[in-house]
Amino acid sequence: MKKYTSISSIQEFLVKEKRRGKTVGFVPTMGFLHEGHLTLAQQARRENDIVVMSIFVNPLQFGPNEDFESYPRNPERDAELARSAGVDVLFLPEADEMYSGSSIKMHVTERTQVLCGSKREGHFDGVVTVVSKLFNIVGPDNAYFGLKDAQQVAVIEGLVNDLNFPVNIVRVPTVREDDGLAKSSRNVYLSDSERIEAPVLNKSLKDAERLIREGEADPGRIISYIQNRISAETSGIIDYIEIYSYPELTPIDQLQGEFIIALAVKFNKARLIDNIIIKAAQEEIHHV
Amino acid sequence: MKKYTSISSIQEFLVKEKRRGKTVGFVPTMGFLHEGHLTLAQQARRENDIVVMSIFVNPLQFGPNEDFESYPRNPERDAELARSAGVDVLFLPEADEMYSGSSIKMHVTERTQVLCGSKREGHFDGVVTVVSKLFNIVGPDNAYFGLKDAQQVAVIEGLVNDLNFPVNIVRVPTVREDDGLAKSSRNVYLSDSERIEAPVLNKSLKDAERLIREGEADPGRIISYIQNRISAETSGIIDYIEIYSYPELTPIDQLQGEFIIALAVKFNKARLIDNIIIKAAQEEIHHV
Repeated sequence: MKKYTSISSIQEFLVKEKRRGKTVGFVPTMGFLHEGHLTLAQQARRENDIVVMSIFVNPLQFGPNEDFESYPRNPERDAELARSAGVDVLFLPEADEMYSGSSIKMHVTERTQVLCGSKREGHFDGVVTVVSKLFNIVGPDNAYFGLKDAQQVAVIEGLVNDLNFPVNIVRVPTVREDDGLAKSSRNVYLSDSERIEAPVLNKSLKDAERLIREGEADPGRIISYIQNRISAETSGIIDYIEIYSYPELTPIDQLQGEFIIALAVKFNKARLIDNIIIKAAQEEIHHV
Repeated sequence: MKKYTSISSIQEFLVKEKRRGKTVGFVPTMGFLHEGHLTLAQQARRENDIVVMSIFVNPLQFGPNEDFESYPRNPERDAELARSAGVDVLFLPEADEMYSGSSIKMHVTERTQVLCGSKREGHFDGVVTVVSKLFNIVGPDNAYFGLKDAQQVAVIEGLVNDLNFPVNIVRVPTVREDDGLAKSSRNVYLSDSERIEAPVLNKSLKDAERLIREGEADPGRIISYIQNRISAETSGIIDYIEIYSYPELTPIDQLQGEFIIALAVKFNKARLIDNIIIKAAQEEIHHV
């Protein structure tokens, strides 16, 4: 596994490889790798000649009251895990290398004022800036993002569409425990009884999907259904349960096309998020 | 010569060519081609396997009181000229194709509040947006820009540096008449006597360079010198004569490093611009 810290060196290496016909798969991360990241890398491994992973804790996407300084870092362990997942090239730039100039400001005007983004002013501006830079540095054919953070995937799909990056965004399903709980480093903060309740988040989303497949088309009734399930079957406090078109993240009054049901629930020491993206079957257009 | 109007088609074609090892030179234009554009294309022809020219009158870089609607267009003549200059691929998108989504706003915070940019609020935001899109669509190894608009070159070099586009920006010298007057479609608006005076703009810049090479290091005295020459030898009214570091476009109090002397002069029916970029010789560091 090669390691680069300099932008020009990795850029030069990858331009040459691509000119020789190699395809590049890219997994951008902030490090402290867990199974979710490794799943992305393993899928990239299967689908590309060269797998590049970046590890960069991006100061631009942290708010003034967020945990940039204390964000966990473990580069040696990360390198070992990346290698085992099939990564060929690790990109580990310093912040000075990534932000040597700053005459261009990027701002995201859509898809950001809902869900978790509504509370993180400027977060996605930092995300699209670093992702634009990384796409230009790595030049991937395919870039892999986990649907655990479905809003991030939506914003990045908007970026790629608006600025025409020649990259295919691969949406990778959330990695789950056997009982359906979305894997998260925060799950360890759940008490024993909370851990038993927590799979209800995913179960209620899947049961909601079944109701929709059976004909329920009203977003309000689906939200109420999930609300009732979580209130009745867990001790968690609901932060939000919201339904939007996906990836546009605009409100809808009928459950049709592609849409997301997303939720956040606060337990005692852990706030859990989960979501489901549903593509409604096309309705018959011709009635005989 | 191939012609494309669809983003996905030209992008797909060029990705394949690059994967086969071909280098791509790119000349972005707004059409109504003149000798300046053709010089860019000819240089691109000499230095690349494939030459791509875009013709797109970008609505985003025109202000509300500027001439977007009346901007001259002549696609048939442009195609003929492009072909004769050695262009292989012409990209002619419609505005709807280029701006189908708009969730990302790009803003340039440096290099824009001086020279002509100070009077064109938002102009360079539109320039960097369309250039970012075109770079992503075309994926050039080399992109060619004329130094007649030296501020645009500076802003684009900032863009490439800040967002790490894998493209080499080629600065192409201003094309001039035999007497040194910078070629411009506006020169036809000069009266016969103005046409005789107009080469003083370039002459005064070249004589200023000679004074600097001979030891003059004070920007104020150089500006006065040029001011006096133009006032004495032409009927034009000076709009500005300014000196900045290049490409940063920040004020300097000593003429050292790389810097630009730029000017704009109003004649009766034509406002002419010209500039010279000077790289001062390194001073001796060791004194024995």
